[in-house]
Amino acid sequence: MSDQPLPSVIGIDGGGTHCRFALTHSGHRFDVTLAAANASTDPEGTLATLKQGLAALAKAADVPLATLAQVPAYLGLAGVMDAQMGAEIARALPLHRAVVGDDRRTAMVGALGDADGCVIGIGTGSFMGRRTGGVDRLIGGWGFVLGDDASGAVLGRQALRCVLDVHDGLRAATPLTRALSARVGSPADIVAFASRAKPSDFAALAPDITAAAQEGDPVALTLMQEGARHIDHRLRHLGWQHPERICPLGGLATHYAPYLSPDLAAQLAAPAGTALDGALALAAQMDPAR
Amino acid sequence: MSDQPLPSVIGIDGGGTHCRFALTHSGHRFDVTLAAANASTDPEGTLATLKQGLAALAKAADVPLATLAQVPAYLGLAGVMDAQMGAEIARALPLHRAVVGDDRRTAMVGALGDADGCVIGIGTGSFMGRRTGGVDRLIGGWGFVLGDDASGAVLGRQALRCVLDVHDGLRAATPLTRALSARVGSPADIVAFASRAKPSDFAALAPDITAAAQEGDPVALTLMQEGARHIDHRLRHLGWQHPERICPLGGLATHYAPYLSPDLAAQLAAPAGTALDGALALAAQMDPAR
Repeated sequence: MSDQPLPSVIGIDGGGTHCRFALTHSGHRFDVTLAAANASTDPEGTLATLKQGLAALAKAADVPLATLAQVPAYLGLAGVMDAQMGAEIARALPLHRAVVGDDRRTAMVGALGDADGCVIGIGTGSFMGRRTGGVDRLIGGWGFVLGDDASGAVLGRQALRCVLDVHDGLRAATPLTRALSARVGSPADIVAFASRAKPSDFAALAPDITAAAQEGDPVALTLMQEGARHIDHRLRHLGWQHPERICPLGGLATHYAPYLSPDLAAQLAAPAGTALDGALALAAQMDPAR
Repeated sequence: MSDQPLPSVIGIDGGGTHCRFALTHSGHRFDVTLAAANASTDPEGTLATLKQGLAALAKAADVPLATLAQVPAYLGLAGVMDAQMGAEIARALPLHRAVVGDDRRTAMVGALGDADGCVIGIGTGSFMGRRTGGVDRLIGGWGFVLGDDASGAVLGRQALRCVLDVHDGLRAATPLTRALSARVGSPADIVAFASRAKPSDFAALAPDITAAAQEGDPVALTLMQEGARHIDHRLRHLGWQHPERICPLGGLATHYAPYLSPDLAAQLAAPAGTALDGALALAAQMDPAR
């Protein structure tokens, strides 16, 4: 994101599968990537991962951990649901100047850089955001049970619903429903799968769905069109206006391009940077005198 | 269901909360009710409950368990997803002539008695069925994650989605969304609740929703109308024709009456009997010479 000398800051991006750490220090940048833990479902594992990553950064930069503790740090962590939860995690860290938020904000700041625009984050989960006049607004990201429409996990779940609809005679079988039956099994197997599956297990079916939609499969097309309608509705609700750019984030966002309204699809633009870049930028904005 | 002398049969209705046992014997009927276990999620607990109930029936009728083992028995159990699973449970029972099916069939047979008609089963879960010319067809009942539209659990989930929509500015607050916020908590609390809630926990919110709909709450009305559209669509898919009666089953089915199409609502009729009556009727139909 920059060729200018970097101030000393720490950025951390704790996503669903990886936890990425970066430290800028004396014009250098040190990066560490560890396997991630979810702050909601595994708070202790998350804290252990964060401490391990900070220790690795200190070693990489050859500074004592006590020095690192004085550096402004911004952490965007999956599973942080509100400011209170973020403050609790921040207090438990070996850092004196840490702000902990959710991973949507860092993704949006990384993607948009300094400019206005929108983001559509569609991976295992989903969220959307818009910055206008420098003010950020984020919606969605409520998780698999109550939200995450258009996400990989919801796509997978909806596709399995369609397989059961075929069994109930409510819908004609398609190549996709036959492939999913072959992959997951009988209706009883599908119900058993659904009862123990994690969101990532449902999302693992998404590549079959996006590929089937490209082949014109009617069920897959319906699901992608439903997801695109959701994205469309939310972006307009956020107030998107031509010609604001829309940055697709996450593994699935770009797959919706063919199904979005042409005015939205025409404004899709590659993100300026990553969520880790966003965390570093947010740390750099922190009051240095705090 | 009858004043005629009853043949010796065993009927068992294993629902979500209770497991009901009945034995007809020499013109008498013996009933036992135990707390239930779900056959899908707790097969060992289910088997223990079934054995305990059979032993209690034998004692109540003062016949040895070995005699009971010769009596035709029909079991309708929640969580039995297919014939293979039913056969496995039947083999493990101390009965030589047991047929194990799911709890939708027994509910339908009990409700319709000997006549044609439809059933709408809407409790924590949901299913629908139609008998025409003596042939039964059942759809739905796939559980909370992939099915159970219009059910109490799905109503509760959808209402919480609406509370989060209010938080995202996508929808105006109503008395129902305010009441649910007061009951469940902040958006973070709602997401945490949803991540650990069982279907019955979501369904526990349904009485608030049906009551709010009666008061004209816009969110509650939308949810009840959505559920009614689902019921309407499925009944017509099953081929419902005027003037076939429609038996509401489960705690929520009758609450949909005001929101159904008038032609359907006019045909709602009280069930002839219970699922336990249905299990006894199905046992009486079993080939006595088998």
